[in-house]
Amino acid sequence: MSSNHDRAIVVSALKHAAPYIRLFKGKTFVIKAGGEIFADIQKTHAFMEQVGILQQVGIRVVLIHGGGPQSTELATALGLRTTFIDGRRVTDGDSMNVATMVLSGQINTRILAICRDLQIPAVGISGVDAGLIRAHKRPPVKRKGAAPIDYGFVGDIDSVDADILRKQLDNNLMPVISPISCDEQGTILNINADTVAAAIAAELKAEKLILATGAAGILEDLDDPSSLISYIDRSALHKLKKAGKLADGMLPKAAAIDDAISHGVQRVHVISYRLPDSLLLEVFTNEGTGTLVVDDIGKLTPAEQSPAS
Amino acid sequence: MSSNHDRAIVVSALKHAAPYIRLFKGKTFVIKAGGEIFADIQKTHAFMEQVGILQQVGIRVVLIHGGGPQSTELATALGLRTTFIDGRRVTDGDSMNVATMVLSGQINTRILAICRDLQIPAVGISGVDAGLIRAHKRPPVKRKGAAPIDYGFVGDIDSVDADILRKQLDNNLMPVISPISCDEQGTILNINADTVAAAIAAELKAEKLILATGAAGILEDLDDPSSLISYIDRSALHKLKKAGKLADGMLPKAAAIDDAISHGVQRVHVISYRLPDSLLLEVFTNEGTGTLVVDDIGKLTPAEQSPAS
Amino acid sequence: MSSNHDRAIVVSALKHAAPYIRLFKGKTFVIKAGGEIFADIQKTHAFMEQVGILQQVGIRVVLIHGGGPQSTELATALGLRTTFIDGRRVTDGDSMNVATMVLSGQINTRILAICRDLQIPAVGISGVDAGLIRAHKRPPVKRKGAAPIDYGFVGDIDSVDADILRKQLDNNLMPVISPISCDEQGTILNINADTVAAAIAAELKAEKLILATGAAGILEDLDDPSSLISYIDRSALHKLKKAGKLADGMLPKAAAIDDAISHGVQRVHVISYRLPDSLLLEVFTNEGTGTLVVDDIGKLTPAEQSPAS
Amino acid sequence: MSSNHDRAIVVSALKHAAPYIRLFKGKTFVIKAGGEIFADIQKTHAFMEQVGILQQVGIRVVLIHGGGPQSTELATALGLRTTFIDGRRVTDGDSMNVATMVLSGQINTRILAICRDLQIPAVGISGVDAGLIRAHKRPPVKRKGAAPIDYGFVGDIDSVDADILRKQLDNNLMPVISPISCDEQGTILNINADTVAAAIAAELKAEKLILATGAAGILEDLDDPSSLISYIDRSALHKLKKAGKLADGMLPKAAAIDDAISHGVQRVHVISYRLPDSLLLEVFTNEGTGTLVVDDIGKLTPAEQSPAS
Amino acid sequence: MSSNHDRAIVVSALKHAAPYIRLFKGKTFVIKAGGEIFADIQKTHAFMEQVGILQQVGIRVVLIHGGGPQSTELATALGLRTTFIDGRRVTDGDSMNVATMVLSGQINTRILAICRDLQIPAVGISGVDAGLIRAHKRPPVKRKGAAPIDYGFVGDIDSVDADILRKQLDNNLMPVISPISCDEQGTILNINADTVAAAIAAELKAEKLILATGAAGILEDLDDPSSLISYIDRSALHKLKKAGKLADGMLPKAAAIDDAISHGVQRVHVISYRLPDSLLLEVFTNEGTGTLVVDDIGKLTPAEQSPAS
Amino acid sequence: MSSNHDRAIVVSALKHAAPYIRLFKGKTFVIKAGGEIFADIQKTHAFMEQVGILQQVGIRVVLIHGGGPQSTELATALGLRTTFIDGRRVTDGDSMNVATMVLSGQINTRILAICRDLQIPAVGISGVDAGLIRAHKRPPVKRKGAAPIDYGFVGDIDSVDADILRKQLDNNLMPVISPISCDEQGTILNINADTVAAAIAAELKAEKLILATGAAGILEDLDDPSSLISYIDRSALHKLKKAGKLADGMLPKAAAIDDAISHGVQRVHVISYRLPDSLLLEVFTNEGTGTLVVDDIGKLTPAEQSPAS
Repeated sequence: MSSNHDRAIVVSALKHAAPYIRLFKGKTFVIKAGGEIFADIQKTHAFMEQVGILQQVGIRVVLIHGGGPQSTELATALGLRTTFIDGRRVTDGDSMNVATMVLSGQINTRILAICRDLQIPAVGISGVDAGLIRAHKRPPVKRKGAAPIDYGFVGDIDSVDADILRKQLDNNLMPVISPISCDEQGTILNINADTVAAAIAAELKAEKLILATGAAGILEDLDDPSSLISYIDRSALHKLKKAGKLADGMLPKAAAIDDAISHGVQRVHVISYRLPDSLLLEVFTNEGTGTLVVDDIGKLTPAEQSPAS
Repeated sequence: MSSNHDRAIVVSALKHAAPYIRLFKGKTFVIKAGGEIFADIQKTHAFMEQVGILQQVGIRVVLIHGGGPQSTELATALGLRTTFIDGRRVTDGDSMNVATMVLSGQINTRILAICRDLQIPAVGISGVDAGLIRAHKRPPVKRKGAAPIDYGFVGDIDSVDADILRKQLDNNLMPVISPISCDEQGTILNINADTVAAAIAAELKAEKLILATGAAGILEDLDDPSSLISYIDRSALHKLKKAGKLADGMLPKAAAIDDAISHGVQRVHVISYRLPDSLLLEVFTNEGTGTLVVDDIGKLTPAEQSPAS
Repeated sequence: MSSNHDRAIVVSALKHAAPYIRLFKGKTFVIKAGGEIFADIQKTHAFMEQVGILQQVGIRVVLIHGGGPQSTELATALGLRTTFIDGRRVTDGDSMNVATMVLSGQINTRILAICRDLQIPAVGISGVDAGLIRAHKRPPVKRKGAAPIDYGFVGDIDSVDADILRKQLDNNLMPVISPISCDEQGTILNINADTVAAAIAAELKAEKLILATGAAGILEDLDDPSSLISYIDRSALHKLKKAGKLADGMLPKAAAIDDAISHGVQRVHVISYRLPDSLLLEVFTNEGTGTLVVDDIGKLTPAEQSPAS
Repeated sequence: MSSNHDRAIVVSALKHAAPYIRLFKGKTFVIKAGGEIFADIQKTHAFMEQVGILQQVGIRVVLIHGGGPQSTELATALGLRTTFIDGRRVTDGDSMNVATMVLSGQINTRILAICRDLQIPAVGISGVDAGLIRAHKRPPVKRKGAAPIDYGFVGDIDSVDADILRKQLDNNLMPVISPISCDEQGTILNINADTVAAAIAAELKAEKLILATGAAGILEDLDDPSSLISYIDRSALHKLKKAGKLADGMLPKAAAIDDAISHGVQRVHVISYRLPDSLLLEVFTNEGTGTLVVDDIGKLTPAEQSPAS
Repeated sequence: MSSNHDRAIVVSALKHAAPYIRLFKGKTFVIKAGGEIFADIQKTHAFMEQVGILQQVGIRVVLIHGGGPQSTELATALGLRTTFIDGRRVTDGDSMNVATMVLSGQINTRILAICRDLQIPAVGISGVDAGLIRAHKRPPVKRKGAAPIDYGFVGDIDSVDADILRKQLDNNLMPVISPISCDEQGTILNINADTVAAAIAAELKAEKLILATGAAGILEDLDDPSSLISYIDRSALHKLKKAGKLADGMLPKAAAIDDAISHGVQRVHVISYRLPDSLLLEVFTNEGTGTLVVDDIGKLTPAEQSPAS
Repeated sequence: MSSNHDRAIVVSALKHAAPYIRLFKGKTFVIKAGGEIFADIQKTHAFMEQVGILQQVGIRVVLIHGGGPQSTELATALGLRTTFIDGRRVTDGDSMNVATMVLSGQINTRILAICRDLQIPAVGISGVDAGLIRAHKRPPVKRKGAAPIDYGFVGDIDSVDADILRKQLDNNLMPVISPISCDEQGTILNINADTVAAAIAAELKAEKLILATGAAGILEDLDDPSSLISYIDRSALHKLKKAGKLADGMLPKAAAIDDAISHGVQRVHVISYRLPDSLLLEVFTNEGTGTLVVDDIGKLTPAEQSPAS
């Protein structure tokens, strides 16, 4: 960056970013990133570099990661099978072991190692640590005219103790959270990472919950990628769901979004990790790149709709 | 425990334990437990119950675990091979991934889940978190008349930042440490758990470093299990080593013991996890069950030799 | 304790005690001990050793002592007379001086000296210090057809400022309390030690109030020592009182127990200091040795009735 | 105070006192008051009112009291005898008990009760509490050609733990100290109150040590009350002692003064409690009323000699 | 002060002042001093000496100053004109600049410099600093049958953030406040110093608001200086105002007094800086020298009416 | 900023700035800005916007301002004369008053008002506040063959108490400092703002001292604006001075720079406020725009020379 032109750009961009930095400094962002991002070292690096910038300008960032593809991969290598029902993984003992190793072991450690390289002070944690998540094994779900669905070692959250996260954030450490959890008897349980992210965002009263996914956002028409919805509220989201316009993978996300907003999270963003710099663009420009979900569009004042995306 | 006799025993034992509790309250014990302990759920439970009692009477406990057998098992299931030189594992990329998943994922999580069951407030951490361990990849070791040994992704410790452990202990949380570490560029590295335990004990200026192993302790005669040494100092340990009387697995332990003591750890205990309640017996009785290593027996005052084992 | 058998006992007892320790750690126990205990150096030592163990395992112990026999002894040596009405001492100026010297001087100091020997960090205090107890001189009690009873320098408590006790407990110091108090004009007043203990337990929202007395506990039949009541609630205690089944010395205790429970103290224990180790047995075994008084037995869940005695 | 003249006096006096208040605010004064003061309720009140004013203007006041006459009185009433050698009391078991009751019980409590009346937040403490004073029983003193002197339960100070006093002062509480102390085995010991005051002043690095006595101060000529020395340093005090010009009661005071100054206390004042308002006059006027002892008069700058008395 | 008589006076005055000191220690006094006081170096010194004594005896003093005469003087020297309506200054751009320089520059700095000389730890601040005062420009006031009054750069207070003042007071610093303020767009605004003082006293829940003025206090009869009202409540003050008996300069003061009391300030004093020592006399004598305004005289208990003036 | 191109620029600039932000977060920058900047509202706004960005990204910014032109302007309006010797202002009583009003009143308040508008939490302070600067009046400077130079109310710094600044910075407040100071007797003194900035930078052990001036930086040839020196060390600066190559206005700056570096300030930057965005360019690009002065260029490692400008 040696030319005067380039240097002017840096200054102009800093001035552009300054009101966002002031607005978000000290606020909490809960970011959930799907396992696909971490299947590739370049993607991981590009994503974490963006996360690191958020952390460096003073945002209290909490990162929750998934690990579906990697779990499938290890299960396959070990000759295990994976089953999904309604977009949620069914988990037997071996699968649970695989998920634990992949999520709390491989992926969590890799993210922390990249944080070391990027000089982001970070610390790994899972729902099993220090009572962070109190969960119970989901009871088999009864179905009319069919056998109940037993999701195996799948947990539902009873409560989140966000105190340990607040202490880490106060110490300027970014928590990197694996969604593996357990019940009070120490049975290890798998919980959907979107669900964990929503529960933690609710408990931390986060300013934003950002879901980084493989999709561009929420689509008006499932078959038309150009039908991206930029701005939507809960009631419209409910209508989409009832109309069957949410893709399979989006169903648990929609439930998580609904849960977070109903517990006071102001804004939920769905962005695509495939789009370069989508995280920074979403946070530091008014237009963003994905879908922003709020409680009730009608209630927002014009001021609330800008300058924060 | 309903008879008067039984009740009298409880009281008598409490009175026996009281001076130990007073002596050790607020002191730091670093305990290293080999992977074998955690290969079996009953053994794990029995061991962690003892650890929990230490924590409950006010000792600041730091637990470091290994995971050799489990890593070997997963590597075998995945068709990988494991090589050892001088009692230390050689680690290629796949092995490193396996070790990461097993140590930081499977074993660490299982220990934390059992802590949840035993109501021990604990938190998992590895050398990768928040700069806990700064390490570098070990350069290939030159050998006369032979190819250099390249241990692969094996690390040597540059420094330990014990501050994060102290904060956890101050918050009444027991750190459960996986020895997986990394260098400043984020290359994940394997480090011998004994070595990690010794470095952490040194940095925390621990009162005790306790190594729970499959052996009964240090033996005078490798072939005679009854030749257990109860009490030894560094110079005598050096002599044993020079005389070739230390078993292969004991070699890295001896180096770790030497390192810890030379950095100010007062007492290092080698105990067998096979002996029931060996941890409690070692801490709460004068005789103990394994081998106690000190700096220099000659320098101890009679008072220092008792009542602490 | 050299045999394997003995050592196993220690371990077994520690495991037995561990859940109690976890349950009571950080909780407040207010213990009131009658003056008889401190009339004998062996008894004092045996009792304080038990108190010290409670303190060492992390219980926040507050000790209140009486001093009736010693006051009587000194009064006799000085040629003074002591009068009791309804189990409460009547206090003229000389008696008040004697009580002050014996309670705040002799007994309090002796307890602290034994604490020094037992390495229990403790600090003496009385109701006169720093506004701990705000009291007023009891007005003469009118009686039909008889002269009013003037209890002399006997006080009734207006309020307790427990803040100073909390600071001492936070500093890991055990308060040893003499019940001598005063009014806001500095008139020194005698207050029944059971009453002081109940008021302090109420103010500290203590987990337990333990009254260590010369009696085995509360008896069903005053004349039958074997009729000890193990477990009773407030309404049953009221019935006993109405039926005239409470001994003279037990009357003020019953009022204090009632007061403590009505202000939120969960459990009040009446134990005998004559029974060896009664304090430890009461705390660390389910059966205990004396009488446990609760608010309403019917309301307790089974879980609440165990494992804490 | 209704006339304009009177009101002008108040204002003028406040202005006079203001620089002293600024100078002494937050500084520590250790005041030792002999037992004679507390033998009379009017004297006690008059003295404590002055102490309270010092405390109210922001001085950190520590008060140590004696109790010789009262101990003698109680001993007499009980038919005991008291012996003095070299101005120090010899203490057998009964005497020790009497001293404990009188000093830690009667006098300490009375002072605290008056503090309650004067709204001085104060808390009683003795050398036995919480390791405040670590002492040992004085071994019998050998004498040439005579039997060794055994002072009985008389202690010599090993160390003072001033931390507990600092916490009380930080909480705006005035410590009222009885000199009764003990050894580490809990043997209760008598220590001269001047000696205790000097040791505590040294440990607290007090600005002033003030000894309030029955004498007007230190006299040039023992037989001439008008020969009061206003200002003296250590070497001159040593000369007086060698010349035999110190009265019996002044001998232990002189040793205490010497000890305090040699440990860094800047100024030691000897004043008479008989002179009305002597404490306030000593602190708030340049001239004072008694004897001021400093390390070395020659080393003082003119500024140091004024305006502080 | 060398005679015994003089010294006795100091002691007697200290005893007189002690209960006031105890009563006011740690309480907050907001003192507003008109610009006239600071037009003369001797007057300033005499007044600040009194303020310093209040601060030294432990009162949390906040000082707000005016600067009318000095502003007029500088405006005159610069050839500007000043207009007043209803006792409030009308402020154009040049006048605002003059007021800023005089109040926040000249007078504030001079007061701080005198504080340096008097060893009063003080720090200057204005309504512009750190959001201390959030104000808005007063909209032109409509009048029937006349053009609206535009007060120019005159502000009305929206809110006071007293946190910064509390931090300064906690650090033992006396805030010296210039009433210059601004709106959220940074337009500098003039606000009447009495109004600022009342708003700050209300926000700090001050014990006293003291207005030091050129007048002796509030008069019954404007033309009769001997008709000073010593004691008045709000309703009587309202009656005086309605009856037109308040002087021009007293009108904004009366509104400020009313505002302070309605927001919980207990006592407002109006005193004359012309009377020597009026501030100390008002605080440290029952009679005071000026007018004391309370909420409702009828509601005061006798105890509340004394001993505090 | 609606086009994709523009949005990409923001992201790219953020990535560029991130390592600088990480490097400087929590570090202290002392910025001195000459009075010329504040003579114009647009310039002030443009400069303060840059300062605000530094503050918002986590740098601890301390701003010191001058006020020469404005003082001259007011002095002229009042008919006073200003004299300079060796680039330093001579200050009589009237000039001192003018400087106080202009610097501590007008300019300081205007900067704070703009901070309010820019949402920069800031607080004004001068050397007179709370002992920030302890100075003495400069004694007349003797000259050979000429009358001594009396600079009037010009001060020289004895010491800086940076504690109050650290507290403000810890509270996230930016100190805005007027260089007006005083001696211990309260005589108000003028001190060169560069000198004050250097002394404060030294006391705060600032990472950078930045002098924003009317000149482009330090020139090799006074008459050739293109001869700007980018990088220089102390010895080279000394040579320039000896060779007479420093402009008059640069002489006190050179002394201040020398003083700051000799007291441990790592880097001093001289930049021109005339160049748009010069402050941001200097901090966030390697090349900068002005002159960087370091202790000794030869001692810098290559790493130290980059990436921080």
